[in-house]
Amino acid sequence: MKLNVTSYGRLPTYAKCTRCKGKALVHLPSHHANFCNECFLVFFRNAVKRAMKLFPLRPRDPIMVAVSGGKDSLALWSVLTELGYYTKGLHIDLGIPGFSEASREASKQFARSRNLELSFYSLKDLFGFSLLDIRSRTHRMICSVCGMLKRQFLNRLAIQEGFSIVATGHNLDDEASRLMGNILRHRESYLAKAYPYLPAMPGVASRIKPLFRLESEEIRIYCQIQNISYVKDRCPFSKGATSHIFLESLEFLESKMPGTKRDFLFGYLETKRPPTSDETPGERCSICGAISYRNICGVCRIKEELTKRDGRIVKGKAT
Amino acid sequence: MKLNVTSYGRLPTYAKCTRCKGKALVHLPSHHANFCNECFLVFFRNAVKRAMKLFPLRPRDPIMVAVSGGKDSLALWSVLTELGYYTKGLHIDLGIPGFSEASREASKQFARSRNLELSFYSLKDLFGFSLLDIRSRTHRMICSVCGMLKRQFLNRLAIQEGFSIVATGHNLDDEASRLMGNILRHRESYLAKAYPYLPAMPGVASRIKPLFRLESEEIRIYCQIQNISYVKDRCPFSKGATSHIFLESLEFLESKMPGTKRDFLFGYLETKRPPTSDETPGERCSICGAISYRNICGVCRIKEELTKRDGRIVKGKAT
Repeated sequence: MKLNVTSYGRLPTYAKCTRCKGKALVHLPSHHANFCNECFLVFFRNAVKRAMKLFPLRPRDPIMVAVSGGKDSLALWSVLTELGYYTKGLHIDLGIPGFSEASREASKQFARSRNLELSFYSLKDLFGFSLLDIRSRTHRMICSVCGMLKRQFLNRLAIQEGFSIVATGHNLDDEASRLMGNILRHRESYLAKAYPYLPAMPGVASRIKPLFRLESEEIRIYCQIQNISYVKDRCPFSKGATSHIFLESLEFLESKMPGTKRDFLFGYLETKRPPTSDETPGERCSICGAISYRNICGVCRIKEELTKRDGRIVKGKAT
Repeated sequence: MKLNVTSYGRLPTYAKCTRCKGKALVHLPSHHANFCNECFLVFFRNAVKRAMKLFPLRPRDPIMVAVSGGKDSLALWSVLTELGYYTKGLHIDLGIPGFSEASREASKQFARSRNLELSFYSLKDLFGFSLLDIRSRTHRMICSVCGMLKRQFLNRLAIQEGFSIVATGHNLDDEASRLMGNILRHRESYLAKAYPYLPAMPGVASRIKPLFRLESEEIRIYCQIQNISYVKDRCPFSKGATSHIFLESLEFLESKMPGTKRDFLFGYLETKRPPTSDETPGERCSICGAISYRNICGVCRIKEELTKRDGRIVKGKAT
């Protein structure tokens, strides 16, 4: 299979693969490299292998992959499988009209095509409200509420299914633009957690980001070469999200100075110690008993806020 | 005098001045404020007064103002004079065809109109080469060579003329975009000097940036209200300079989230201690005797590089 995929514009026909000297089809300016499809896949897998070495895992540790149906999570699941990890997918239907149906279908279709196990849950069942319900009942930034709920439920469901590692599809662009936003806005508490690995604690699975060394565009090319069908649309609820704004600003710098994103993120990570579980707060939520940074966990706080608006009172444990 | 100058688009006709409730003519979204021209000038002077309080100066210390003929340096000279400081202008003709003549004329005209003292020097006389000569003889980034030469000669000439303080027109945009560039590229040694004040040492004047709290656009409005004629063109040698790229990226963020530049720079400065003279390296250049970070100062190193290309050898002290 030879697809004419190029990262930034077309390559001249005489361009050679940096690795095998065959005909190059993929141009990666931030690496000063061109690849044929096969060598691109080697490059891609090597980037994931290199990331995985950073995480203190044992080779046979089973990994729960958070699968949204977008290119990042499906590429992540695909490459971890290729590298021989034992994985299971976990998909949470958020209840975003149109978008959630397409996301579920893409996840299902990928799992079926690769004969992989995939668990389905719905936010409405888990939490009592879909994201559409939540959006109409709160003035909070919907992306930050959604992010928090996904993190919490991914962890709880992974533990419930017997997994102690959760992998997410965050890529280099996600990590670099979030880092940029947190630095520009002096969000020190977020900076402390800016690492592609967070350790496990009792009741909390460790979180890994195996794609953190790969750019969004590289993941798109991987999906194209591997014939992975994914949901191409952005979440319709995320319009105007600040994360998109920081990414756009960083993309502009990258277009003028290829390698900026990479050098920025990796240079920053070099100065950081990997987090240890001693550094992670371990309070228990007084309502649902989940590990929490405060007396009441984020899930229960949001739930209280949403139900108070109805005049109803939350009783018992959340979810 | 009522000019219809607005910072970002026109104001609605009913907009009122935040300070005096008169008709507003200036809109400053990053301050959530509108001003009439008179109150804008009060706001502008207050921002400079607040900056000056940060610098350990005595009220009657004479200040040498680095005057390029652009809006920042002329606004700086104007506002320092309004605030009652004793100032003298210093202009270095860099020898950039067309641009330098216009810059010299704008500086001269401003000094004449305000009856202020202005010293003129030329880089060719001081250093032996104009910036045009230098550009044709080195592959170094011309903006960084120019910046270094200006810093060095401004200091030497200020000391020679009996001044111990040099003020430059760097504004909030300059400082914020340079800080962003240095953070993204992990330039730790530059970050250590990222402060709007550098202390004096024997043989070195202190450097102050009284406009660091004011945005480029605010300075443009000040010049318009105060009828200051300045050179509007950018230096023709600075095309593609990385500083412009970082500024453009930051301007994009500012347009989406007004106040970003300000919060980023001021938040960063709050975490920094003002530099003290103990922290500044104080070696002497073995060729010209100037205070230097290395055995041979930047000026002499550049001069050696430029003259070696001719087959000539530099003898004696550099200017």
